[in-house]
Amino acid sequence: MRGQWGDKLQLSLFGESHGEAVGVIIDGLPPGFPVDEDAIARDMARRAPGRDASATPRRETDAVRILSGVYRGMTTGAPLCGVIYNQNARSQDYDGVTGPLRPGHADYTGWVKYRGFNDPRGGGHFSGRLTAPLVFAGSLARQLLALQGIAVGAHIQSIHTQRDDLLDDTTVDAATLDTLRAMPFPLLNPDMEGPMRQAIEDARACGDSVGGVVACAAVGVPPGWGEPFFGSVESVLSGLFFSIPAVKGVSFGQGFGLTTLLGSEANDPFVLRDGAVHCPSNRHGGALGGITSGMPVVARVGLKPTPSISQEQRTVDVRKNQEIPLRVGGRHDPCVVPRAVPVVESAMALGLCALYLEVTGR
Amino acid sequence: MRGQWGDKLQLSLFGESHGEAVGVIIDGLPPGFPVDEDAIARDMARRAPGRDASATPRRETDAVRILSGVYRGMTTGAPLCGVIYNQNARSQDYDGVTGPLRPGHADYTGWVKYRGFNDPRGGGHFSGRLTAPLVFAGSLARQLLALQGIAVGAHIQSIHTQRDDLLDDTTVDAATLDTLRAMPFPLLNPDMEGPMRQAIEDARACGDSVGGVVACAAVGVPPGWGEPFFGSVESVLSGLFFSIPAVKGVSFGQGFGLTTLLGSEANDPFVLRDGAVHCPSNRHGGALGGITSGMPVVARVGLKPTPSISQEQRTVDVRKNQEIPLRVGGRHDPCVVPRAVPVVESAMALGLCALYLEVTGR
Amino acid sequence: MRGQWGDKLQLSLFGESHGEAVGVIIDGLPPGFPVDEDAIARDMARRAPGRDASATPRRETDAVRILSGVYRGMTTGAPLCGVIYNQNARSQDYDGVTGPLRPGHADYTGWVKYRGFNDPRGGGHFSGRLTAPLVFAGSLARQLLALQGIAVGAHIQSIHTQRDDLLDDTTVDAATLDTLRAMPFPLLNPDMEGPMRQAIEDARACGDSVGGVVACAAVGVPPGWGEPFFGSVESVLSGLFFSIPAVKGVSFGQGFGLTTLLGSEANDPFVLRDGAVHCPSNRHGGALGGITSGMPVVARVGLKPTPSISQEQRTVDVRKNQEIPLRVGGRHDPCVVPRAVPVVESAMALGLCALYLEVTGR
Amino acid sequence: MRGQWGDKLQLSLFGESHGEAVGVIIDGLPPGFPVDEDAIARDMARRAPGRDASATPRRETDAVRILSGVYRGMTTGAPLCGVIYNQNARSQDYDGVTGPLRPGHADYTGWVKYRGFNDPRGGGHFSGRLTAPLVFAGSLARQLLALQGIAVGAHIQSIHTQRDDLLDDTTVDAATLDTLRAMPFPLLNPDMEGPMRQAIEDARACGDSVGGVVACAAVGVPPGWGEPFFGSVESVLSGLFFSIPAVKGVSFGQGFGLTTLLGSEANDPFVLRDGAVHCPSNRHGGALGGITSGMPVVARVGLKPTPSISQEQRTVDVRKNQEIPLRVGGRHDPCVVPRAVPVVESAMALGLCALYLEVTGR
Repeated sequence: MRGQWGDKLQLSLFGESHGEAVGVIIDGLPPGFPVDEDAIARDMARRAPGRDASATPRRETDAVRILSGVYRGMTTGAPLCGVIYNQNARSQDYDGVTGPLRPGHADYTGWVKYRGFNDPRGGGHFSGRLTAPLVFAGSLARQLLALQGIAVGAHIQSIHTQRDDLLDDTTVDAATLDTLRAMPFPLLNPDMEGPMRQAIEDARACGDSVGGVVACAAVGVPPGWGEPFFGSVESVLSGLFFSIPAVKGVSFGQGFGLTTLLGSEANDPFVLRDGAVHCPSNRHGGALGGITSGMPVVARVGLKPTPSISQEQRTVDVRKNQEIPLRVGGRHDPCVVPRAVPVVESAMALGLCALYLEVTGR
Repeated sequence: MRGQWGDKLQLSLFGESHGEAVGVIIDGLPPGFPVDEDAIARDMARRAPGRDASATPRRETDAVRILSGVYRGMTTGAPLCGVIYNQNARSQDYDGVTGPLRPGHADYTGWVKYRGFNDPRGGGHFSGRLTAPLVFAGSLARQLLALQGIAVGAHIQSIHTQRDDLLDDTTVDAATLDTLRAMPFPLLNPDMEGPMRQAIEDARACGDSVGGVVACAAVGVPPGWGEPFFGSVESVLSGLFFSIPAVKGVSFGQGFGLTTLLGSEANDPFVLRDGAVHCPSNRHGGALGGITSGMPVVARVGLKPTPSISQEQRTVDVRKNQEIPLRVGGRHDPCVVPRAVPVVESAMALGLCALYLEVTGR
Repeated sequence: MRGQWGDKLQLSLFGESHGEAVGVIIDGLPPGFPVDEDAIARDMARRAPGRDASATPRRETDAVRILSGVYRGMTTGAPLCGVIYNQNARSQDYDGVTGPLRPGHADYTGWVKYRGFNDPRGGGHFSGRLTAPLVFAGSLARQLLALQGIAVGAHIQSIHTQRDDLLDDTTVDAATLDTLRAMPFPLLNPDMEGPMRQAIEDARACGDSVGGVVACAAVGVPPGWGEPFFGSVESVLSGLFFSIPAVKGVSFGQGFGLTTLLGSEANDPFVLRDGAVHCPSNRHGGALGGITSGMPVVARVGLKPTPSISQEQRTVDVRKNQEIPLRVGGRHDPCVVPRAVPVVESAMALGLCALYLEVTGR
Repeated sequence: MRGQWGDKLQLSLFGESHGEAVGVIIDGLPPGFPVDEDAIARDMARRAPGRDASATPRRETDAVRILSGVYRGMTTGAPLCGVIYNQNARSQDYDGVTGPLRPGHADYTGWVKYRGFNDPRGGGHFSGRLTAPLVFAGSLARQLLALQGIAVGAHIQSIHTQRDDLLDDTTVDAATLDTLRAMPFPLLNPDMEGPMRQAIEDARACGDSVGGVVACAAVGVPPGWGEPFFGSVESVLSGLFFSIPAVKGVSFGQGFGLTTLLGSEANDPFVLRDGAVHCPSNRHGGALGGITSGMPVVARVGLKPTPSISQEQRTVDVRKNQEIPLRVGGRHDPCVVPRAVPVVESAMALGLCALYLEVTGR
């Protein structure tokens, strides 16, 4: 389990921030599925840097070049490789080998793991830029799920202490998720955009950064997907969510909030609706016993503040083996949360797509 | 990824609550590792039912019969199969096929997934009883980690609204974890045992149940274990944590709390201590960029209240296809949190043991 | 990939020849599939020792105890664990630790790999006895394939220099395979039983042993199973065949014989038969480009002579670190080929069953 | 197990013959390993088309563009993606969708599997061109093995009925393998080049083709690699060999020849040489009980004749659903065996490299 993931749907991720390209092979997509390149471009644009005042000024078109697996506009069923060539890398912002360890980054852990041979420029393989191919793969997965009547979307639940309205885990519908997906700054209560942007600007002004929570949901998922233990819906999805840099918490349904409820408050009753089993509430977040219940699958994902800050920090230069003060230069997001929304969405889409393919064998 | 998990260390879980046995194959343990059967028995006893007034009165000795992989008291390196024969199953508490869906349980999702053929007695394969072989495997993993100087332990951070002191993620040490592991009701502040037990009793008295949070830590883990994306420490561990029934939230380090900090507050500085890189704080919970940092690995795991409650609930009988009121009979824990402590510990031990074996190739 | 195999259908094998038990977990079988315990017993009997004058006199009933995954006679969809308790182990035939290395056995390689900690009694985990749980799993797989109209069977193509008639790879049908499966010494030309048994007896009389070739076929496999490269039908099946102790060669269709044909002789033409694409010849053995063609899948598997011979051999005692002469005592088959027939069949059934489940997602 | 392979060393293969590129991600290589791009180019040239009169006149430089995983000439430890852009594709040689099924090719099986959506141009993803990235990955694996003192090489054992001298499985050494690897037409007896080339020319002259056998060996492999059953050395290697298009038979050591020996003739004795356990013969081909013995690992791989022949063949046009005569046009090898030598070598190097990394954990 390295840069590869999955059984029935398989991902293989590669690339470095300031290398030649980043990309992904996605394998196991069924043949004959029409690839909507415009939708891919829109999804890529949502994650791409330089589009929004809140984000890093590094500009990348993030155009995906599909090298294989698509013929005449449709998936062939063979491995699909998508590559994003790096265009606007400014490696001179970075030194050639690991020296000063940026706090909160993988500089130290990567230096140990790779014994000093990792590409340190812009974080190298650890860069958030690797989420671009994830969004590409996620866009394909989401398109495939859409053909099955499944919608996936997400909103910014909070940035620092500013909170959007809570997503209603029970009544969330495809229309809401589609609307959110079309918003550059997806919120249930658009009035919160101002305070959230202000929180980001306040952090930037101090050379600081902020994090937040993304709430993500999928509606239309039929009951019966997932496995009791190691392949539980939550295990599959959390494994993908925690693959996203900066994620430090993941919960499903009411999550940690369930721990302070009584069983009689936490259990969702079953009723019949149009002859089918249904829950009038969804505190369980769409998974019971590791298996989808037919209710919306809802996850909340907590992201720490961007570790790159220009304030002076205390750290170690491992080349000189001495403590030094550090101000991180370069171009950085004071808040990755808005750009993380399509990444979280993609992780959920990929996980559910894998479960779908497991069940249908396509 | 069904009942099997892992690459280098592999688990294969089987059994039903009221079938003949539950068990696990653990494969990939290095040869020549002395198996401490007393330690296993102690770990099994911590999880076993019927030991504590707070738990189900079902009594099982939970003795593990090792069928293979151990010779003359030491691992051979071949697959190790441990079986726990069910002794005190009272199947008459349960009906032969799925009828009334117990809210909060896997009755509905299992019935859909397995098309009515699953063993419904006591939850069948979905039973929390399947955590017994996990604890067995976890005990072996923990013993192996101990030989590498790594200690794993956990405490009850909260039950319902009663909270223990917070584990200090930075200063937690092996002695603390060893002490916790020896406690039947592991708390940092033993004075909280009374209020917590009271919360459980209050719930039981009302035919209700409560959940809580388990905080788990490992100290002595060297830096450099784990992978940048899909095999991140957090992905590996969360996948195992979410394999535990009732877990609905997982966080590392300060977790969701990091989302309301500024980057300057969240980043842990690096310093030199005895010539080695060290962090004087550990808000990151021991993993940066998906890779261990050498700081304690700390996770918090939220468990929902036991779904089995004797209060009347609204549900559906899928055999009759009609809505019915339901009171769940049988013997149940009003709170699984104390018994979940060794299970959470085991999940962490197994995940770290897998990472250890990945790195060392043993 | 240790004692575990597979993605969609997963096996986990355990046990030692003179330990408490051997067994297997088979996971991924669809729910609601009726388990024919009589058919299992018949398949186990075909492999069991002590049934035939040609085989080892060690007697084991080889009754399989199903510990999980079956309820009311049908698979539940949960992991199915089958255990065969060892009854007639005579460990006194064997010494407690590895000393004299039996030529042709895994004594040396296992001693190195497991650093002396492996269970050496009767070959320990390397014993051919581990093929008993393979036959159990294979019997289940074959039963499931039979429900899809697929028959699997095999015959003894040769023992030493005695050869049966060649299976016709093109016209072989289910009736032939069913007949072969019912024969204790499966041959197309029953007149060859005498010469083959004589070859075995001749070897036994000299304290020697013989090997042979098993030809195995599956008919009714639809076209379209398998993958172009790493998951080719041949890769999947050969991986399983080479998991069987003593197998040193595997071929499909005309196999090595194709290497001396011209392309115009080797290519199988396509014709229409009842409106469907069909090949009037099957030199390709049922797989083209790694994918089933709808023609019979035919494999030939070469097994070396049993390495246990009572003739004096030259070897090394690793405990004494000196060269010694060795006569292998204990009870051994002078020829494993007849007992290997159901094992080879099982490997093919398991591989095809895995491909079936991959395609159908059940 | 689709376009991806492996656990510790992972491959992910992609591309189509007449698409934009073919390539591979190889993941799990240790950091700090110097990549010899000249050696890669030499290995690629051995497989590249158009270099030899015996091969297809399609010319491709087969230059590999490394997109990631190498920094300052050394592996970083991150996934390494190598891409070979197609330059000389002449798609007009091929029609846009599958119509006439070329006998012996994957046209039919691919059309069924991918439901008509596969890229049929030049075989699409099934093309032998996909072996180019395999050779690239194999070259890296071979370089890494060389640093451990392990040499891998191969020769053409036979083409059609013309046979080279037999490789001596016991005495083969690194010098021999290095010599073979430097030969464009690798033979132990160079006098056989003439007759073999003549056999190829004879076939070409008739619009026909020939196959052959490649014998491949690795020397310097320490004892103790591999697993008893599913991960046996033979299972791992045969799975890779059978991933190579046209391979229909694989054997180890004396292979099928062992089936006509007596045990006393087949067993390789153990002796002490310089204090270490050694076999004075190597009929077992370097693996006993699925684990390397320290003796040369020797495999023989049988390849069928190239299915593309210009002679008229009988087949079906699936678009018209009628039987037709077919002459396959385009540019084809009358014999792939010489170009298959580095591919077979690469498969062995990749398999052994994976086992090496499993054992060492690097």
